[in-house]
Amino acid sequence: MRAPVEAGALRINSERLWGSLMEMAKIGATPKGGVKRLTLTDLDRQSRDLFVSWCKAAGLSVTVDGVGNIFARRRGRNEAAPPVVSGSHLDTQPSGGRFDGCYGVMAALEVVRTLDDHGIETDAPFEIAMWTNEEGSRFLPVMGASGAFAGVHSVDEIREARDVDGVSFGDALDAIGYAGAAPVGGRPLAAYFEAHIEQGPLLENTGNTVGVVTGALGQRWFEVTVTGMDAHAGPTPMHLRRDALLGASFLIQEVNRLGKLTEHSRGTVGMIASRPNSRNVVPGETVFSVDFRDTDVSGLDRMEQGLRAAAGNIAAEHGLGIDMRQTVFFPPCEFDRTCVAAVRAGAERLGYPHMDIVSGAGHDAVYIARVAPAAMIFVPCEGGISHNEIENATPEDLAAGCNVLLQAVLARAG
Amino acid sequence: MRAPVEAGALRINSERLWGSLMEMAKIGATPKGGVKRLTLTDLDRQSRDLFVSWCKAAGLSVTVDGVGNIFARRRGRNEAAPPVVSGSHLDTQPSGGRFDGCYGVMAALEVVRTLDDHGIETDAPFEIAMWTNEEGSRFLPVMGASGAFAGVHSVDEIREARDVDGVSFGDALDAIGYAGAAPVGGRPLAAYFEAHIEQGPLLENTGNTVGVVTGALGQRWFEVTVTGMDAHAGPTPMHLRRDALLGASFLIQEVNRLGKLTEHSRGTVGMIASRPNSRNVVPGETVFSVDFRDTDVSGLDRMEQGLRAAAGNIAAEHGLGIDMRQTVFFPPCEFDRTCVAAVRAGAERLGYPHMDIVSGAGHDAVYIARVAPAAMIFVPCEGGISHNEIENATPEDLAAGCNVLLQAVLARAG
Repeated sequence: MRAPVEAGALRINSERLWGSLMEMAKIGATPKGGVKRLTLTDLDRQSRDLFVSWCKAAGLSVTVDGVGNIFARRRGRNEAAPPVVSGSHLDTQPSGGRFDGCYGVMAALEVVRTLDDHGIETDAPFEIAMWTNEEGSRFLPVMGASGAFAGVHSVDEIREARDVDGVSFGDALDAIGYAGAAPVGGRPLAAYFEAHIEQGPLLENTGNTVGVVTGALGQRWFEVTVTGMDAHAGPTPMHLRRDALLGASFLIQEVNRLGKLTEHSRGTVGMIASRPNSRNVVPGETVFSVDFRDTDVSGLDRMEQGLRAAAGNIAAEHGLGIDMRQTVFFPPCEFDRTCVAAVRAGAERLGYPHMDIVSGAGHDAVYIARVAPAAMIFVPCEGGISHNEIENATPEDLAAGCNVLLQAVLARAG
Repeated sequence: MRAPVEAGALRINSERLWGSLMEMAKIGATPKGGVKRLTLTDLDRQSRDLFVSWCKAAGLSVTVDGVGNIFARRRGRNEAAPPVVSGSHLDTQPSGGRFDGCYGVMAALEVVRTLDDHGIETDAPFEIAMWTNEEGSRFLPVMGASGAFAGVHSVDEIREARDVDGVSFGDALDAIGYAGAAPVGGRPLAAYFEAHIEQGPLLENTGNTVGVVTGALGQRWFEVTVTGMDAHAGPTPMHLRRDALLGASFLIQEVNRLGKLTEHSRGTVGMIASRPNSRNVVPGETVFSVDFRDTDVSGLDRMEQGLRAAAGNIAAEHGLGIDMRQTVFFPPCEFDRTCVAAVRAGAERLGYPHMDIVSGAGHDAVYIARVAPAAMIFVPCEGGISHNEIENATPEDLAAGCNVLLQAVLARAG
């Protein structure tokens, strides 16, 4: 081993990181430059095999747990100490990109390789984590395997989930040979860091290279059904109509208004369907989704109350029935202050333009934060576009995020 | 022949009319009590055969034209005079009712039977007309065969229309044996009267038995495409969104507002589709239909201008692209004043509560009005519901409309 360098001067190998990402992106590559690598398919197996081969080449010991999560461990001076962990996921959306998830795993691997380059030994062990099925595209729930690690879901619950073809998660996991013997969760982690592309436009719009992620928005989703009365568009005068789509139009605007309550709140109507959906018939029923997000539960509560009040008024005014059914709830997540501080200090030390940011989307880190001190590092993605084959990020920004990760890991692993 | 009775005392046979309607409703009867008798199917053939057998039993001479329109003629004292004509259609919507269309044909037949009962000879000949494919459910355009009679469409154009299975109107017409030798249109009619259920709620709501139809609303339809930008519902702050569905929601309300410009105007958004239509993605594209109706073209123009102005403002305010494409235009129709007066005088003479009414929907009479003096008679339908298997009307109201038709026919046929 060579003599250790001073941590502040330490830099990851940007070209090697980019090379790993591009090599991994070949597995499931799409003609449009994206990646389709659905969880627990043979392509997923290929990406796991490649990752594991790289980990073994780096001398890491690899274990796999009962839901397919992979942990690649680099020894610490104090092997009895809880490990510092970093990672993300290798599965993608059906029309996914090259960076969502994969970046967090490759960045953790690059941290190991950089520590090795410089012969740096840490006090605590360091583990790379690769979580199964973050996307939830093939099996629900999303982030199921990190959720199981955090005790939110049981192993049976996860294994029994079925895809649209009726194949169970458990059978698919067994088939690719990644149902491990290690217990799922139940062990302490010293800290968990996850590097990820932002998947939104804020860093790019503000000219920042690093997002210091302080937490993640809570989410409360509803399905709203507006019931009116089908009627002929010609013979039915305006004042005798009970137009479900018209009622829905007011609620769509109310969702948007409520989404602006605070800097971090969001209100989105993404899905709509109207019946009978005929050009010359007044719609008798309109169903739409509502996705509310906020940094705290009271904000979500206020949005729900606001929408329910509006629904009552609109129902009365337009002679409609309006039913609101909650379909999803994720509580807001606040990351560990010392972990967040370690990320911020790393960005400052390296002189990267950075800003505090709240994750609008869910990530494995949000579940791991329930059982360990955790934080995330965001880097910009082009146009804020993700879950899309044209998802893109620059080698420089990806290297910057990885350098900050390295700093944070060193700060926590000693 | 028996001695003629004074016209004012003449009444149709209500039970016989009801019996004809119920007998015809057996052809294509649905379990829910409606009728599915799509144009130019074997069920259509059965209904035509039954109608023709009744006409022949009444001594009428039957001719069929090149698009399948059937004319059943009762001789007049002056056979050289243009005939007074009354009728409607026997085809139905896929989930149609027992009265839409069929009532107008059976009412005209009942007029013939009543004249025969009383040995009444008219000066002008009287013809029952059965127009092919009024509904347009299987072949477009709607009201195609009465449109061809009025010279709006060529026979070739009508015969070449194809259904969703690729079968042409011409082949389907040949197959049921109702492609006749008579030329399509091109002959004078003394007057045309059409009895029809209202298909709207006005008569029922106002307690009137007879609607004196003074004309039909013009229609101008658009397809509107709102283009924004797909974005993740979580990471994308509200102020950076370009939400196509939100933009559409303002336009839906504008269509509704413009529909209230005058007593007779209508504005309807019946169809909507949003993409990618995913619960946690801000919609990047929303397409919807607009159906404007009014009694005059200037009203339709004002509605179009109002919507275009609103679209411009909404596009600018929300960073959206908005495209409006006209898909349908029917000019407003004003029925012949003397024919309308004949209907009104008949209702008054018989003491039926009546009101002037403008048809919101299109009817064969709207096309025939282009080549002959025409008017329509509406009777109430339960709840204003039509194009629905639960469509209903009372024997009394149907008889009232038929009695008014008889009066109007006698007034014009002499």
